[in-house]
Amino acid sequence: MKKVGVAILGLGVVGGGTYKILTEHRQFYRDTQNVDIEVVTVLERDKGRFETLGVPQELVAKNVFEVVSNPDVNIVVECLGGITEARGYVLDALNAGKTVVTSNKELFCKYSHELERAAKRTNAGLYFEASCVGGVPIIRTLLDGVQANHISSIQGIINGTTNYILTRMSKDGMSYEDALAEAKKLGYAEADPTADVEGFDAAYKLSILSSLAFHTKVPFAKVFREGISGISHEDIANGNGLGYTLKLLAVGKQTDRGIEVRVHPTFVKNGHPLAGVDESFNAVFLTGDSVGEVMLYGKGAGELPTGSAIVSDIIYAATHEGSRYSTFKNNATADKDVKFVSDFESAYYLRLTVTDRAGALAKLAALFAKNNISIVELLQKSCGEDSATVVLVTHTTHETAVKNAIARINGSDVAKVESVIRVLS
Amino acid sequence: MKKVGVAILGLGVVGGGTYKILTEHRQFYRDTQNVDIEVVTVLERDKGRFETLGVPQELVAKNVFEVVSNPDVNIVVECLGGITEARGYVLDALNAGKTVVTSNKELFCKYSHELERAAKRTNAGLYFEASCVGGVPIIRTLLDGVQANHISSIQGIINGTTNYILTRMSKDGMSYEDALAEAKKLGYAEADPTADVEGFDAAYKLSILSSLAFHTKVPFAKVFREGISGISHEDIANGNGLGYTLKLLAVGKQTDRGIEVRVHPTFVKNGHPLAGVDESFNAVFLTGDSVGEVMLYGKGAGELPTGSAIVSDIIYAATHEGSRYSTFKNNATADKDVKFVSDFESAYYLRLTVTDRAGALAKLAALFAKNNISIVELLQKSCGEDSATVVLVTHTTHETAVKNAIARINGSDVAKVESVIRVLS
Repeated sequence: MKKVGVAILGLGVVGGGTYKILTEHRQFYRDTQNVDIEVVTVLERDKGRFETLGVPQELVAKNVFEVVSNPDVNIVVECLGGITEARGYVLDALNAGKTVVTSNKELFCKYSHELERAAKRTNAGLYFEASCVGGVPIIRTLLDGVQANHISSIQGIINGTTNYILTRMSKDGMSYEDALAEAKKLGYAEADPTADVEGFDAAYKLSILSSLAFHTKVPFAKVFREGISGISHEDIANGNGLGYTLKLLAVGKQTDRGIEVRVHPTFVKNGHPLAGVDESFNAVFLTGDSVGEVMLYGKGAGELPTGSAIVSDIIYAATHEGSRYSTFKNNATADKDVKFVSDFESAYYLRLTVTDRAGALAKLAALFAKNNISIVELLQKSCGEDSATVVLVTHTTHETAVKNAIARINGSDVAKVESVIRVLS
Repeated sequence: MKKVGVAILGLGVVGGGTYKILTEHRQFYRDTQNVDIEVVTVLERDKGRFETLGVPQELVAKNVFEVVSNPDVNIVVECLGGITEARGYVLDALNAGKTVVTSNKELFCKYSHELERAAKRTNAGLYFEASCVGGVPIIRTLLDGVQANHISSIQGIINGTTNYILTRMSKDGMSYEDALAEAKKLGYAEADPTADVEGFDAAYKLSILSSLAFHTKVPFAKVFREGISGISHEDIANGNGLGYTLKLLAVGKQTDRGIEVRVHPTFVKNGHPLAGVDESFNAVFLTGDSVGEVMLYGKGAGELPTGSAIVSDIIYAATHEGSRYSTFKNNATADKDVKFVSDFESAYYLRLTVTDRAGALAKLAALFAKNNISIVELLQKSCGEDSATVVLVTHTTHETAVKNAIARINGSDVAKVESVIRVLS
């Protein structure tokens, strides 16, 4: 039976989960995968962590050099997070010919070319299933399950924190602040929630997933990003009334005009498979030219789901040694000519305060018409003393047309646009 | 660039789709997968088919011997269906050292051990993603995506024909006969729909998926099977009223008592991800000890979705040549001690005609209580002249307890059980 030695860098949530799974399932993998996987060393400064996890003292390495020079280590698992240390350590491991399995989305998103060059040089493997959507095998699916397809679009709820917050706002009528506070209490949001609520986390993942789906590097800098911190409960409730559920959606598209990648709050029509993805669940919805629509759904984060992705990568690496693959089939130079679309098409939800006087609605309608924006549905919500709230949903149109229309409306004496939310179309 | 020669046996719906995808995407696979895949020969008796598909005459082989002895053929795609010819042809190909990709669920379900032995002998590959759930990469996911997990259960809507029929009955109030007729008209059901509506097709697939999930051969003969031909629109409507949607569900479980595999009509509570899987869509819902709940959703049949699965297998085979894997990690002898559970646990929906006289409902309740069956909800539907219709849903209980209760009820003068449908619990 093949023996595989594993080193784990960082015993935080994900590294700890990986340690637990590997130690508890060792006999199971011997029986079912014909491979004996042993954790031979760990790198962790916090004594408390390796005590909690029951890691024998003799497994704790002093430094990364000890790890990468250890001849018993075949696979290095990187669960440090961040860039500073992780980048150097992963390069050290790859340069030493060790296969690397990482859960680090920021690292892989920003430095994949560098890491892949290093891996190729020493014929080491480089695996990153755990970087996107926790235990959901979306990377494996893109590489080995739907690779026969031209993928035209990828739509995902790929951040559990924001999905939990939006679910509480939508189902329980909570304010953003209260929902965020609850998410923190439950461990779904960090003390500084910026990376999640402002869409950075989703944007890293979208960059990785789009790069695989569209066979070209999609840099993080090209991802349009808008978070959920400005979302009001009023808009969520209005959307619900019109049959929509609000999600922080990551959208990647490959069109004749180029590649389009964006993360922003989005109303999804109820009945669409993504609309029902609640709480901290995640899902990715793909469209391929042969396979049609495919969706993968599951837990996008957490100790054991993300650990499951890491261990699945370890087993894959151990049992597929003959087939190192180059992740991005195009190389860095081929990425030069890729076009990115910024004036994307979408439908839009708008909430406006309209002056309550004869002809105001007609004037408003004319302003939309002038910008070639047609309206699917419009609802006059309530009357203040001399104003009314109007919510409407447009047909699919260009972002610039909507921006122009908003500027004109706000410059008029007819109405004021209070909020704009994109609608999945 | 690596060159791969493909032979296609059978140019029906799936074989034809495979031919189309391979010829239309040849340059795409050169660019993105670094492999040049060419259809070098086909075996098809129906001249009309290769004319429709534009297959050059010189590609048409006279017989299977010509195919398997062709040195340019590396991979043989079997899309013949059935057993008689397919079994022999696939064995011929494997014995000649050709890698086989098949969409044939009946063949793989019944003869996987034989085929795997042949494949091992000549170190040929054997791939069968297309045998289950069309383009949805469920086999790849079980083998390479969630293999770090003990899978405890697998629940699937894995037959598109029956899901289409049940959707029409549920959403449009159609009778079974009308919905079946429409499914035939649309090409979702065959002239003889037995394999689909009586659950054979789903049972073949469940046998394959459970074998992979539970790491032991689960024979077709062990799958409990009940079709949808006896389902009345009245029961579907009653279930809808109680918040359930009826699905033909395939369920595989690994419990302390053994393995449990069954295909039968099942009420799924609305809000469960499987309840929203409508029309001809399919989905498989897995539970793993680390990853938790994972669902894969997509088109379970059709020319291009199933062709997508075949071509993904071809690409995988071409790019992972160093890693032939043994599909079932246990061998045939290890399967001997596997226990199968037949007295499975479930919740149940019952519709009864109850005598309309004082104390009848009390007597009925007592009969359930005597068999240790507790009732979640009960609804008296309508009163006839001297009888009423009662529908109820039980808590999770044993199948034998329900059978005993039904026998007692039908033997009493209190009520008669009109229908029994299992409820996902």
